[in-house]
Amino acid sequence: MLEDKSPQLTPVSELGEFGLIKHLTKRFSLQQPSSILGIGDDAALLSAEGREIAITTDILAEGVHFNLGYAPLKHLGYKAVVANLSDIAAMNAVPAQILVGIAASNRFPVEAFEELYEGIEHACKHYGVDVVGGDTTSSHSGLVISITAIGYGEKESLTKRSGAQPNDLLVLTGDLGGAYMGLQVLEREHSVFLVNPNMQPEMEGYDYILQRQLKPEARTDIRAKLQELGIQPTAMIDVSDGLASEILHLADQSKIGFRLYEEKIPMDELTIMTADEFNLNPSIAALSGGEDYELLMTIAPSDYDKIKNHPDFTIIGHATEASEGCYLVLRGSNELSKLTAQGWDAFLNKKGKED
Amino acid sequence: MLEDKSPQLTPVSELGEFGLIKHLTKRFSLQQPSSILGIGDDAALLSAEGREIAITTDILAEGVHFNLGYAPLKHLGYKAVVANLSDIAAMNAVPAQILVGIAASNRFPVEAFEELYEGIEHACKHYGVDVVGGDTTSSHSGLVISITAIGYGEKESLTKRSGAQPNDLLVLTGDLGGAYMGLQVLEREHSVFLVNPNMQPEMEGYDYILQRQLKPEARTDIRAKLQELGIQPTAMIDVSDGLASEILHLADQSKIGFRLYEEKIPMDELTIMTADEFNLNPSIAALSGGEDYELLMTIAPSDYDKIKNHPDFTIIGHATEASEGCYLVLRGSNELSKLTAQGWDAFLNKKGKED
Repeated sequence: MLEDKSPQLTPVSELGEFGLIKHLTKRFSLQQPSSILGIGDDAALLSAEGREIAITTDILAEGVHFNLGYAPLKHLGYKAVVANLSDIAAMNAVPAQILVGIAASNRFPVEAFEELYEGIEHACKHYGVDVVGGDTTSSHSGLVISITAIGYGEKESLTKRSGAQPNDLLVLTGDLGGAYMGLQVLEREHSVFLVNPNMQPEMEGYDYILQRQLKPEARTDIRAKLQELGIQPTAMIDVSDGLASEILHLADQSKIGFRLYEEKIPMDELTIMTADEFNLNPSIAALSGGEDYELLMTIAPSDYDKIKNHPDFTIIGHATEASEGCYLVLRGSNELSKLTAQGWDAFLNKKGKED
Repeated sequence: MLEDKSPQLTPVSELGEFGLIKHLTKRFSLQQPSSILGIGDDAALLSAEGREIAITTDILAEGVHFNLGYAPLKHLGYKAVVANLSDIAAMNAVPAQILVGIAASNRFPVEAFEELYEGIEHACKHYGVDVVGGDTTSSHSGLVISITAIGYGEKESLTKRSGAQPNDLLVLTGDLGGAYMGLQVLEREHSVFLVNPNMQPEMEGYDYILQRQLKPEARTDIRAKLQELGIQPTAMIDVSDGLASEILHLADQSKIGFRLYEEKIPMDELTIMTADEFNLNPSIAALSGGEDYELLMTIAPSDYDKIKNHPDFTIIGHATEASEGCYLVLRGSNELSKLTAQGWDAFLNKKGKED
């Protein structure tokens, strides 16, 4: 879209700032009973209907969080929404509304905004979420997307990071590392493209991990599954920065330690094969890759029978006393390696070279 | 701050992204009973306690909404909060929480973030508002600030833009045009500074209008005053883009027209004198200047006696049927001039030249 220099593209100045916002947001109608008033007033009006409100905000900058060279604007809009809904899901709340702020340089024509909003709309429809507020502005360079998401939940079912207890089981949804390996493939093909724009990118066979990177999903389905199982997690967090970093957050805020078993970390076959291709230990992709948007939670040990062998959940470790620290139990041995926000000690140098 | 090249400044990389957020947000403690959980989890938790929720978001970009050449970061932080609280006040709701998103290039040292957050903190203390969420990221250039504000109000007392009726009185708080004239002074002195950095800027005597531009206040006091007077506005909006533009918003959403009387528009003596100095019609500053953050409302004609001669409110016109359009009644005559978002027809050319 940005490469297209065709004269049909519409400069934002043709619509003006108010015109652009009106044009982009007319596609959104309100579906949620908690959305009382949407876009078009000084503020939106919402009703919590006796529930508590979960609210989160993210700011994404071009060149830092995304590269328009290989992330289509439509996917980017979708992913920006998903990243925020994932935070709401991590509170065990039901997402219901978002507000969207966009600052973009005037190299972005109206059609680029439309593409971005198409992705936002697609995500909102998929997750049943209303867009109730928005602000769009020009900036002197680059694209910055800020999304605020709101969700609701009953006070007693909401999950913070701080409720885990020693001996709780550490449980993960889905599999990890795919988004990171997808990014490696995209970056490799983008480098090839930059050297020779006539080369066709080799994306075939990487579908699953490319989707994990470009169009991830938020686990808003997990709340109902936990309810069905009769499980109330003691703590929960979403995996946006890599498993190691999230475990350390839970440990820090619950004042406990963790044992994580490397061999238990669920990974897709394609993630492992692609890691091999890049000469990378796949556990690195899981531990420090990030952007998988799975949910990591702790549950009481007495819930073990309810969750074992469930296809959506994998037990990957357990909580300990804080004094025991946070350690990875290495695959095929009982050797312990201290977890750090960057991954884990034993592989730090290796990872440093590969980054 | 940004001009200071002294070696004591701390690069953001020294703290890291998590470290920076922790460092900047540790100053915020929760004061509002509706703030259940603040910064540090996947989302903040709020309780509406049976009231409706008003929520708004703004995105401000360097070079578009502010110029760091003359807007100190501390004032910028303060003003960014005020602009959002003003939107909450315009819904007749009580602001209670904000979330802050900041994207800044790495030319900003930690001390620059601190200064910005000092202004944010100052505004939050002044208005009794909690910071419950935040995201800070590096960007490839410039500074972008995104603020989301949340407030609460009883369903029946909230004011939308859409409730005005023909014959309602058009009422304004405070005075207009000051922020725009303050900007003219700042831009003039900044131009002088760019030509000769040794020249001292001439700011003396312009205090009121400089404050209106650099450190405006939100009219969160008006809700209680209206309650005391027993007045429920039929519609309300804040004056962020200029009086003309806001009147057109009310007209559009309430499906009515307006007569606005030029001679009734309240302006401070200094605003008028400075407009004279710049050879500008002061009504232009009021009608299309913006950033005054006063509240513009409509009230039932039967409320006239309650509000006449009140020092905080000025009746500046009245609503008509939609078919009668939106017109300014020019000073000293009964001549009508059509209101446009840019100001009004009769002066458009003049304004065009002066911009």
